[in-house]
Amino acid sequence: MRAVDLIRKKRDSGEHSREELDFLISGYTHGDIPDYQMAAWLMAAWLRGLNRSELAALTEVMLCSGEILDLADIRAKKVDKHSTGGVGDKTSLILAPIVAAGGVVVPMISGRGLGHTGGTLDKLESIPGFNVNLSLLDFRRVLRECGMGLIGQTAEIAPADKKIYALRDATSTVESIGLICASIMSKKLAEGIDALVLDVKTGSGAFMKREEDSLLLAEIMVETGRRMGKKVVALITDMDQPLGRMAGHSVEVAECIEVLSGGGPPDLRELSIELSAWMFFLGDRTKSVDDGRLLAESLIVSGQAKEKFKQCIRLQGGDERVVDDPGLLPAARSVERILSPSRGFITGTLCDQFGIALAMLGGGREKKEDSIDHAVGLEFHARIGDRVEKGQPLATIHYNSGAKLAEAKELIASSFQIGESAPFEKPPLIRRVIGG
Amino acid sequence: MRAVDLIRKKRDSGEHSREELDFLISGYTHGDIPDYQMAAWLMAAWLRGLNRSELAALTEVMLCSGEILDLADIRAKKVDKHSTGGVGDKTSLILAPIVAAGGVVVPMISGRGLGHTGGTLDKLESIPGFNVNLSLLDFRRVLRECGMGLIGQTAEIAPADKKIYALRDATSTVESIGLICASIMSKKLAEGIDALVLDVKTGSGAFMKREEDSLLLAEIMVETGRRMGKKVVALITDMDQPLGRMAGHSVEVAECIEVLSGGGPPDLRELSIELSAWMFFLGDRTKSVDDGRLLAESLIVSGQAKEKFKQCIRLQGGDERVVDDPGLLPAARSVERILSPSRGFITGTLCDQFGIALAMLGGGREKKEDSIDHAVGLEFHARIGDRVEKGQPLATIHYNSGAKLAEAKELIASSFQIGESAPFEKPPLIRRVIGG
Repeated sequence: MRAVDLIRKKRDSGEHSREELDFLISGYTHGDIPDYQMAAWLMAAWLRGLNRSELAALTEVMLCSGEILDLADIRAKKVDKHSTGGVGDKTSLILAPIVAAGGVVVPMISGRGLGHTGGTLDKLESIPGFNVNLSLLDFRRVLRECGMGLIGQTAEIAPADKKIYALRDATSTVESIGLICASIMSKKLAEGIDALVLDVKTGSGAFMKREEDSLLLAEIMVETGRRMGKKVVALITDMDQPLGRMAGHSVEVAECIEVLSGGGPPDLRELSIELSAWMFFLGDRTKSVDDGRLLAESLIVSGQAKEKFKQCIRLQGGDERVVDDPGLLPAARSVERILSPSRGFITGTLCDQFGIALAMLGGGREKKEDSIDHAVGLEFHARIGDRVEKGQPLATIHYNSGAKLAEAKELIASSFQIGESAPFEKPPLIRRVIGG
Repeated sequence: MRAVDLIRKKRDSGEHSREELDFLISGYTHGDIPDYQMAAWLMAAWLRGLNRSELAALTEVMLCSGEILDLADIRAKKVDKHSTGGVGDKTSLILAPIVAAGGVVVPMISGRGLGHTGGTLDKLESIPGFNVNLSLLDFRRVLRECGMGLIGQTAEIAPADKKIYALRDATSTVESIGLICASIMSKKLAEGIDALVLDVKTGSGAFMKREEDSLLLAEIMVETGRRMGKKVVALITDMDQPLGRMAGHSVEVAECIEVLSGGGPPDLRELSIELSAWMFFLGDRTKSVDDGRLLAESLIVSGQAKEKFKQCIRLQGGDERVVDDPGLLPAARSVERILSPSRGFITGTLCDQFGIALAMLGGGREKKEDSIDHAVGLEFHARIGDRVEKGQPLATIHYNSGAKLAEAKELIASSFQIGESAPFEKPPLIRRVIGG
């Protein structure tokens, strides 16, 4: 087998066998196939596509490029959630404690924010002392002890994906539904889970702006996971505006604590409970999703979910006191309000621009190497469908450095779309369930 | 400007400006853009295509990556011919002496054979002592002295093409009409010529098997050359069977000497005269192509073309005595005949397989590094339309090593297509003229 022939095959719309994909991915991971051949193949795959059986095979060979977490010694079911990312998307910090408190283990390996999206690892690091860089050995210990753990990708997990992702980033081959699916699923299935709930975002703040693209990605991921013997369900959820009221790092952790304490914004609470409910159902903890919802709510009311979050923070080296006193989280020195330029109704938002403004202010990364100011955040006061008066606050910026404040302010202001009449309908939070 | 953005642009079917192509090609030639980004761009360009103005710009920036031969001190018109390659395609060794003898200068920079096709440089090297590796300084001297010169690509000529071609070879991005056009034209226009005649082969022995592909390549090359201020004409010519009776190296040189001596097979003689005639016409040496044909024929009859060939061989270090005594050329030790398995008519040939069989016997390259046995050759005794009896010789193999003789013999035998009735029509030698 020769790489040049496999490149030609994909270029000419051929279908790869599992052996061919194994040859390509293993060869590339071990350095036998050079970057330039992989780059040509990635572009051919981007433009010609990968069919369902190729995707399942690609995911499997990428998965097998590294270690698959063996959690057989933990008898409880293991279920995780993955979100395709958005602005203010913080449900992991709420649902992991809920689900773990309910007796289903959540071995969550997360990512960092890039571009306009936030990342779970960055949010957790705003908790003083919290260590996301556990070895797989320590991760297993934390999971056995408290039923949940939140870490970053290690060198042992899907190394093929790590190497290929860096190449995709440099060769404009990132936004391919097939390659995205293989990348996500190879990492998630390495967690040794029984089931996976996917939160596929759609709208102006998502990577997939169009619902049909989100739908296709969701279907492909569900099918790929099932071909590999896992229970998988995907929820297509709204990202036409930020989720909850806060976007940033410490401000999002604080908002999660609000929800775990029984409060918090309705949309964030609803989605967190819905995702938890599916995790309970797929993890055979409840007979139905409805029962899962009731269980999730009861675990919040009883305080058990909040206690579980504390326990996890403690086991991962963090200061658990933040849960009872969010004032211990890093806070920004200054605030600046953004006022409505006119009277009318919020008809929509350019939601990804909120994320870009946040990154400008230091609360996100433009490049992978950038460091993050965990205290910076955005607070939103108006949602789609709301009536606003001229001069009424639309958002508040929490910031430390004023260097790009004016630019960020203007970007945020222009991202609220204000019309004379109310929008025909508010976007439903949960648009569809795939594979349910 | 960033390479990653230009890759994305071509991936999304965008059109590049001259500045963008210059950034890409210069950056790659100087090592600022890595192989893997160029590979991704090449695949995107292969799949999305390049339009006519992109092609002209790409050709120009590749041309400008190196030295352009300044032949201003030679007052005569400079005209070259380029063929896209085939089996037994040896017209350069005939037309260059004819055209130079007629007073038009032929500064020919040629290539080597690869795959099933032969290369002018390899054929010339079967002449004892002939040096195709002249410096540009020596090349100019030979041109001034005898009006023709035959050398290989030097490091100074279109270095971008040299680097990109090697990458295309490793990434299955060779057979793109746009990339082929830019590669050919950037090298040919670096010769400092006034006009160019293109011999675009079509049929089973050509790179382009389908006439419509050959036509498109011809049109694009003619347009690209004209955009750059050169006179360019393309002839679409038959490669459904070998040109002339011989394929190999010393056997082809001998056949060229036959034509220059007034004999030789009719098809080879016709095409060589036709191409010479166009070169005379484009070089303003004759008022019409018809006049060019008469001039070419007269230069053969008078022996001037043959004398010109001798002079060139002498100036490039070769043994000119081969022209009067082809027995001085390397000859193979053994011959083997291939007999017709049945009675009938030759209806067609799988012409590229003859070239592959020749390479198997040592008379061609499977890889660039392979060395060549100049004495090996194939002699064809039957052409399309000929009636053959069972047991009648179809071809003779001239060989030294019998290692792959049986395999080559079988391949050659199976490449003659024999039917019960004569083919509807014999393929015309010159199918079309583009830009005439």
